[in-house]
Amino acid sequence: MAKISSSTETEQCIESLIAVFQKYAGKDGYNYTLSKTEFLSFMNRELAAFTKNQKDPGVLDCMMKKLDTSSDGQLDFSEFLNLTGGLAMACHDSFLKAVSSQKRT
Amino acid sequence: MAKISSSTETEQCIESLIAVFQKYAGKDGYNYTLSKTEFLSFMNRELAAFTKNQKDPGVLDCMMKKLDTSSDGQLDFSEFLNLTGGLAMACHDSFLKAVSSQKRT
Repeated sequence: MAKISSSTETEQCIESLIAVFQKYAGKDGYNYTLSKTEFLSFMNRELAAFTKNQKDPGVLDCMMKKLDTSSDGQLDFSEFLNLTGGLAMACHDSFLKAVSSQKRT
Repeated sequence: MAKISSSTETEQCIESLIAVFQKYAGKDGYNYTLSKTEFLSFMNRELAAFTKNQKDPGVLDCMMKKLDTSSDGQLDFSEFLNLTGGLAMACHDSFLKAVSSQKRT
């Protein structure tokens, strides 16, 4: 994908999300969705810190099914954004809980 | 906010979204939501390329109302993610349209 000229942190972040999605979506089959194999590759490389801490080996299968709201066996960009947004929410919630417990001690 | 050790592009992006939100949310009032003033500051600084191209002066008021799904006059982190996700979707859709029109010519 051609680099979009961007300057702010938010613009760079939007550009990164699109670039990462296209990088993994372009590995096999249809270029603009993540197949199961592409999703697993994304999770094991880009989110390895999360993935390797999962004790249940079926967790990625389960995530793919939940994210694939259109049930077509592929994740489109909006379904991919639900994944990254969900992880961002979880990180932010952990941060708020840590702040809240610090205030109590 | 303390820097989270991160290495991949996706992890950096999640970290950036949280850091940018907290930077603007911490400017006045309650630290973990964007007030109207903080939202306008975010839009004018972080997304100036988008904001300055809007011809209707009421567009930011309208966006704030639509994003504030809880109608409390503040944007929490999940409402903020809907904004950045919506912009990422719009950019990605434009890209797909450009690819599709290139293929047709």
